Amino acid sequence: MEKFQIKTKSKEYPLFIGSGIIAELQTFLHEIKLNKVSKILVITDESVSNLYLERVLSVLQSLYSVTSVIIPNGEKAKSIDVYYQCQTKALEEKLDRASLIIALGGGVVGDLAGFVAATFMRGIPFIQIPTTLLAHDSAVGGKVAINHPLGKNMIGAFHQPEAVIYDSSFIATLSEKELRSGFAEVIKHALIKDREFYNWLTQEVSSLDDLTGEKLQYAVQKGIEIKASVVYEDELEKGIRAILNFGHTLGHAIEAELGYGEITHGDAIAIGMLYAIKVSERVYGIDLSYHSFVSLFKRYGFPTRVPRQLSNDSLIDRMKRDKKSTASKIRMVLIREIGLVEVREVDEAILRLILDGEEE
Amino acid sequence: MEKFQIKTKSKEYPLFIGSGIIAELQTFLHEIKLNKVSKILVITDESVSNLYLERVLSVLQSLYSVTSVIIPNGEKAKSIDVYYQCQTKALEEKLDRASLIIALGGGVVGDLAGFVAATFMRGIPFIQIPTTLLAHDSAVGGKVAINHPLGKNMIGAFHQPEAVIYDSSFIATLSEKELRSGFAEVIKHALIKDREFYNWLTQEVSSLDDLTGEKLQYAVQKGIEIKASVVYEDELEKGIRAILNFGHTLGHAIEAELGYGEITHGDAIAIGMLYAIKVSERVYGIDLSYHSFVSLFKRYGFPTRVPRQLSNDSLIDRMKRDKKSTASKIRMVLIREIGLVEVREVDEAILRLILDGEEE
Repeated sequence: MEKFQIKTKSKEYPLFIGSGIIAELQTFLHEIKLNKVSKILVITDESVSNLYLERVLSVLQSLYSVTSVIIPNGEKAKSIDVYYQCQTKALEEKLDRASLIIALGGGVVGDLAGFVAATFMRGIPFIQIPTTLLAHDSAVGGKVAINHPLGKNMIGAFHQPEAVIYDSSFIATLSEKELRSGFAEVIKHALIKDREFYNWLTQEVSSLDDLTGEKLQYAVQKGIEIKASVVYEDELEKGIRAILNFGHTLGHAIEAELGYGEITHGDAIAIGMLYAIKVSERVYGIDLSYHSFVSLFKRYGFPTRVPRQLSNDSLIDRMKRDKKSTASKIRMVLIREIGLVEVREVDEAILRLILDGEEE
Repeated sequence: MEKFQIKTKSKEYPLFIGSGIIAELQTFLHEIKLNKVSKILVITDESVSNLYLERVLSVLQSLYSVTSVIIPNGEKAKSIDVYYQCQTKALEEKLDRASLIIALGGGVVGDLAGFVAATFMRGIPFIQIPTTLLAHDSAVGGKVAINHPLGKNMIGAFHQPEAVIYDSSFIATLSEKELRSGFAEVIKHALIKDREFYNWLTQEVSSLDDLTGEKLQYAVQKGIEIKASVVYEDELEKGIRAILNFGHTLGHAIEAELGYGEITHGDAIAIGMLYAIKVSERVYGIDLSYHSFVSLFKRYGFPTRVPRQLSNDSLIDRMKRDKKSTASKIRMVLIREIGLVEVREVDEAILRLILDGEEE
């Protein structure tokens, strides 16, 4: 088991990572001084509850008054209705300001449970127990939110967890699709800030099958470290934090155009990262060996092209609507070299050119 | 026109106060560097919109893209549905992170609009334009929230406004009932922290009719200063801020037992303050001249006794359920002398004795 401190300007909290560490949950609560909480509400989803809820409850039940709420699987759970159901449950179970919410699940559970915690009685503590590889990303940074039919993550808050407890044995039950989805964010973290880690990835992880044991743990830990260091600089997302959107401008557009859930987040941003690399080569007039990235991504099983059924016009429109963009230029994250990125406004014309060329 | 800085640990923002100052709204926005906002959404209620919305819009329309949403009057507007309607309106009107929300109204509008601002795209700026005397209290402190059928203010956040703009001419249109309700909080602020101000009140404000012009402005300003100084010590309500609940333990119980809206907040806490004074005399074994407070409160038109139809058992039960209480003792704010209060746990038996005695 390893322990790291994640620092934000407003708070510092530990990340515990290791295989099977969920059994030590009580110890961790003690360590973060939450062993005196009046009540615990575990928020989880249908799939995760089948796999791990009993285990988590059994660790806690001897010492705590603990209850749980099971939300539907998938993005649709990030709705105002499910949010309100969780608030109602918390009130019915008589949680108070000295209570704790535990988010047990992937990114959706973390975002929803975190927003419930951020606003229940004006904010109570919560801890993240991520069960997916993708959640290594969302569990760090304090961004919590629900969706609105008019936009994803439109209603939310910044609320840092008291701890992140990452039991890497949970990863073993993930499908290849889910594992790959999370791995895309690991690669992104390497690309935006850490050439050495990127080299390690290309050498040590030749396929997704390598993502077990110590290698998995190292990959997650590095990913979280990079995410945390960017968030530290810019907790409230006013500047540098935007580099975390590398690959996300086109990635989000693809997800939205296909309809959420039709492609994994990781597959979408993998295509988006390759696109950002190609745009970078063009804008900076440099050679980044685009094709070497394509082969690497193929090795991991990522799609490397925009799905054929999508129209480039619609994708450009979507990218222009992104909340980080303005007028006829589109703000996106470009890469100068591995480990060095920057936010740039790029002409729509160039973006269209590369997008059209991509089909050839 | 006067300007004061209100300091919290996380932020400092100005209070502008004066008669007719709403006409200078553009200047204030400039002064707080919000003159570049992309859009403005004014949230107000039916009554206030009839009186002041046109005036506010007309001041802003020449320079800003401004829109408004009118919520129902009264506490029922602090619901999840009205909250969500405001979010929807903000999204439909394409507000973004560079937009501003204006709360134009009393405490309900401020609480609701503040919570919308706190959570729209994870938090955008808002300013408070209070239109009641009571809102002098709620507009300062950053506590924003909506209600749940299982409790008032159960879902909310801490979100400080960028400015409070208090046009004292708005007070002139208040009914005596509303004016008195707000004045109770002014008296409370004097009692908990400022003997000199309390003496000024008893001498200069012999009836509610005196609450105009400079006297009104001074009373509001002192009330806000005291509130702000307490909040400064304890922004997230972990300790000293609890003294602001002077008179509220029984006051809240009376409001809840009668049904919200059946008695004004101010009338309820006036009864609660007299009760707290009597309990203090008993607990400390001192003489605070309880009857002089009763005569003063009567002069202003406050009720001084618990409404006859309420049962003492139910009131005690309510007080025990207060989120500041634990087990068989009830936490409440007691007063040692004018300007000096403290939070104490008081035995249920004493509370019952005084409550029973009060009927004699």
